Amino acid sequence: MRLSRFHLHTTKETPADAEIVSHQLMLRAGMLRKLAAGLYTWSPLGLRVLRKVERIVREEMDRAGAIEVLMPTVQPRELWEETGRWEKFGGQLLKIKDRKEAEYCYAPTAEEVITDFARDELSSYKQLPVNFYQIQTKFRDEIRPRFGVMRAREFLMKDAYSFHLTEADLEREYRNMHAAYSRIFERLGLRFRAVQADSGAIGGDASQEFHVLADSGEDSIVFSTGSDYAANVEAAQAAAPGARPAASEAMRKVDTPTQKTCEDVAALLGIPLARTVKSVAVTTDDGFVLALVRGDHAVNEIKLGKVPGLGDYRLATEAEILEHLGSEPGFLGPIGAKKAIRVVADRDVAAMADFVVGANEAGFHLAGVNWGRDLPEAALVADIRNVVEGDRAIDGGELRLARGIEVGHVFQLGRKYAEAMDATVLDENGKAAVMSMGCYGIGVSRIVAAAIEQNHDAAGILWPEAMAPWKVAVCVINPKNDADVAAAAESLYADLNATGHEAVLDDRGLRPGAMFADIELIGIPHRVVVSERGLAAGTFEYRARNASESDNLDRETLFAKLSG
Amino acid sequence: MRLSRFHLHTTKETPADAEIVSHQLMLRAGMLRKLAAGLYTWSPLGLRVLRKVERIVREEMDRAGAIEVLMPTVQPRELWEETGRWEKFGGQLLKIKDRKEAEYCYAPTAEEVITDFARDELSSYKQLPVNFYQIQTKFRDEIRPRFGVMRAREFLMKDAYSFHLTEADLEREYRNMHAAYSRIFERLGLRFRAVQADSGAIGGDASQEFHVLADSGEDSIVFSTGSDYAANVEAAQAAAPGARPAASEAMRKVDTPTQKTCEDVAALLGIPLARTVKSVAVTTDDGFVLALVRGDHAVNEIKLGKVPGLGDYRLATEAEILEHLGSEPGFLGPIGAKKAIRVVADRDVAAMADFVVGANEAGFHLAGVNWGRDLPEAALVADIRNVVEGDRAIDGGELRLARGIEVGHVFQLGRKYAEAMDATVLDENGKAAVMSMGCYGIGVSRIVAAAIEQNHDAAGILWPEAMAPWKVAVCVINPKNDADVAAAAESLYADLNATGHEAVLDDRGLRPGAMFADIELIGIPHRVVVSERGLAAGTFEYRARNASESDNLDRETLFAKLSG
Repeated sequence: MRLSRFHLHTTKETPADAEIVSHQLMLRAGMLRKLAAGLYTWSPLGLRVLRKVERIVREEMDRAGAIEVLMPTVQPRELWEETGRWEKFGGQLLKIKDRKEAEYCYAPTAEEVITDFARDELSSYKQLPVNFYQIQTKFRDEIRPRFGVMRAREFLMKDAYSFHLTEADLEREYRNMHAAYSRIFERLGLRFRAVQADSGAIGGDASQEFHVLADSGEDSIVFSTGSDYAANVEAAQAAAPGARPAASEAMRKVDTPTQKTCEDVAALLGIPLARTVKSVAVTTDDGFVLALVRGDHAVNEIKLGKVPGLGDYRLATEAEILEHLGSEPGFLGPIGAKKAIRVVADRDVAAMADFVVGANEAGFHLAGVNWGRDLPEAALVADIRNVVEGDRAIDGGELRLARGIEVGHVFQLGRKYAEAMDATVLDENGKAAVMSMGCYGIGVSRIVAAAIEQNHDAAGILWPEAMAPWKVAVCVINPKNDADVAAAAESLYADLNATGHEAVLDDRGLRPGAMFADIELIGIPHRVVVSERGLAAGTFEYRARNASESDNLDRETLFAKLSG
Repeated sequence: MRLSRFHLHTTKETPADAEIVSHQLMLRAGMLRKLAAGLYTWSPLGLRVLRKVERIVREEMDRAGAIEVLMPTVQPRELWEETGRWEKFGGQLLKIKDRKEAEYCYAPTAEEVITDFARDELSSYKQLPVNFYQIQTKFRDEIRPRFGVMRAREFLMKDAYSFHLTEADLEREYRNMHAAYSRIFERLGLRFRAVQADSGAIGGDASQEFHVLADSGEDSIVFSTGSDYAANVEAAQAAAPGARPAASEAMRKVDTPTQKTCEDVAALLGIPLARTVKSVAVTTDDGFVLALVRGDHAVNEIKLGKVPGLGDYRLATEAEILEHLGSEPGFLGPIGAKKAIRVVADRDVAAMADFVVGANEAGFHLAGVNWGRDLPEAALVADIRNVVEGDRAIDGGELRLARGIEVGHVFQLGRKYAEAMDATVLDENGKAAVMSMGCYGIGVSRIVAAAIEQNHDAAGILWPEAMAPWKVAVCVINPKNDADVAAAAESLYADLNATGHEAVLDDRGLRPGAMFADIELIGIPHRVVVSERGLAAGTFEYRARNASESDNLDRETLFAKLSG
């Protein structure tokens, strides 16, 4: 491709409404243009990158044995009623009425349609397993679309759905897809982690998210130095604490007149924050519960909700707290409640000795508190906290925190959709068996933004080679006035493309500074400058996008460098 | 691909609701599955074909210098208001409200969005010409969707839009696209014609339709034996008639008591139908008009509407006819009207002598009528008829009629959209100039159906090689019980794919009859059977899909045959 015939349209200004760096750089590089809230036109430059991602995803899905199909974007209400998601999906479901007032939605995902397809197409266990995928436009009517294609309303997604007779076969395909996803992100050249996820509202048995690591990522993820273990914060677990030390202090009431937080109490008493206990008051249909975590820890709402009897919990009101504990917030604790309460202790709290809790009296805390002696052993002990950097991992390593951008998700859905839609096949014994399903998504357009969040500098984008619009930019100095230079550049450009080094020729005749700024902004991994001076010396000026210096290389060395 | 791992799902029954052969065969071959009215899921087999068409379209658009972009399918009302098409487009425009009650449509075409893109992206004539295209899902809310993907509501379309400073440059690009389209349909292996079209409601200056020829085609197209000239019936023109013969008969009134049609009158009088004249009564805002065509011709409504003063014509009522001509329909003519009327004579009528017209009196016609003598020369003479098979063409050849399926369309839009949306660039003199536009569409998914309409037999589809899901099917007889045969088939299958002959291995272990029926139904161009008997003889049984006999070929001859 010659840039003179390619519609490249960069700008120097950072658009005012672009909040994150990938959105800013995609607009500045001219990859995108906003049509309306959450709706973007992909320019020629942007689409080249999107198609490269799409191709790698398709190749690896094919290699993994999945079979491509294409489902309509407009889907009838009736199918979504069968699973109850016409209502349950919520406001993100864009509902449509046609000219006959029949109701449809713009697909945000396709479990219903593929399950309908499968119940019609599949009748025997002999047709299983099968994994259907598509790469198709989706729509989610976000309340607040933002961050460009990172959270657009219309976006390109690869969604795959597998069908199985047994759970064991589903697990096998789940591992197969996990491996395929790892290959996809490796080929894309992105640093990523597969993390255990709470499966949340979609339901099902097991799921993992694939995150592109980036400091600007919205999600906090946890990984171990000791193995491949990684999880998002909702699901991450640390190793269980060691045995509880013996009590060595007597319980005493201490004055904490204005100290309402663990931090303030620890500072006042001159003890580590890890010796204090935070009391979080919640209520359930079955009554008042006090959840205890260490002062340096935070309650994990999802884990707490999984504790038996706490599925419906909500934070207690000040009135409820006063009624049960007789104190205002800031001085709460498990000792001396006015009414019978339940106590849920985090595993780490249950392993503490000589700790500090609120005294249920304004201005006072209790220090030197010990389980069994000063208060009964907690009836409920569970992991109810977020892990923190440095926690010991289950595998013996240490837990670290990182930021990530979710770009993929693999689920073991089980029989939820197939049961709701009566998708059965005849098994070996000729009996109807509900199929078990997996689903596997990749945010194709989101990957483009995530790659930029991970790979950029002050000058612009640094594409991994596999995603770059072109691998090499051949920049010509003064082509209009120097026929020899222009001819040498043309020849180099042709040779590069003929030998598999996808090259673009910048023959626009810009001044070198403006030309180089464009090539850096749009992130071409390798730049080769063809100039009169270089021609005289028999060299080309080469610079890698991530290097700060150029090298003058002869033709042979240049090609060797690009091949290495 | 091995069919044992590919989800092939053929059926013997012809679906009841499929009216045309392509729809029937696509369902029987399992290429499509209906989701709702006009909405189809493309199965793995169908999608393979669709992607092949898409790839050829993309390659030829790229080769022609067009640049690919991707526009959202959901487009804001505001842009469609700028051109007035939010209302004018009619019921086919699927309108959508999002959660904030903002209005959008599902794009049936993208002139507005690309013109908006262009007015933002293009500021100087130096950026012109440019031709943006996309291959993107479209939606038209057809009142009566039918014929499968031939007239689906959601479909895949390639739409391109070019921008120019001058009309001359638009014409150059129009010719460039015309050539690209010809290459596309040639590469697809389809018999087609590019026909002159009436540009109809989209407006603009010049347009041509690309039709796949098929006896079942909905459109009637006209072509000449003398040149490349072809046109749809709306636009087709015949050569002008020769000079008018001299009058040889006297005008006389003839009894035609029950003869109300030209056919009946000609039969009664024993004269050729071409000696009679049909009078069609219409009214306009400027009054009553009688349009005259030869008895063996039909009025072309579009041509009649282009006659000066007839832009707003409609058929006259019986009351209007009685008021102006004093007669009931069936006996109308240009002589003896009760009021002053205008007469429009087709060119062929103006060249007639001694002809027959109605007498404006029930039960009577006038024969031996001659212009100038019996009635004044017609004030308006124009081409207002449909051409017929055998007409002399302008190029000296003969006109022939054929049936076609419209699969492509190229338009010179001119400045219509750019003017409405104020899409300007600065010209060489620094003055704002409204851009001139072309637009170029191809119905990608429709091509799949059209190819089947053109290429099928009683056993199924006959794909042109470029569109076939695979070029060669390797059919294995009894693979489960004969390891040597299975191994030979595997080896042949691998060698075919390694040498560029895209092959599918039918290793499903079906009986030969069922296997061959499937392979014929899905239209694989070349079939090779690997059997124990063949193996013993050192041959493979080869049959082309369009042949009725098989040949036993050794390996070398087989590969030579496939390469030829």
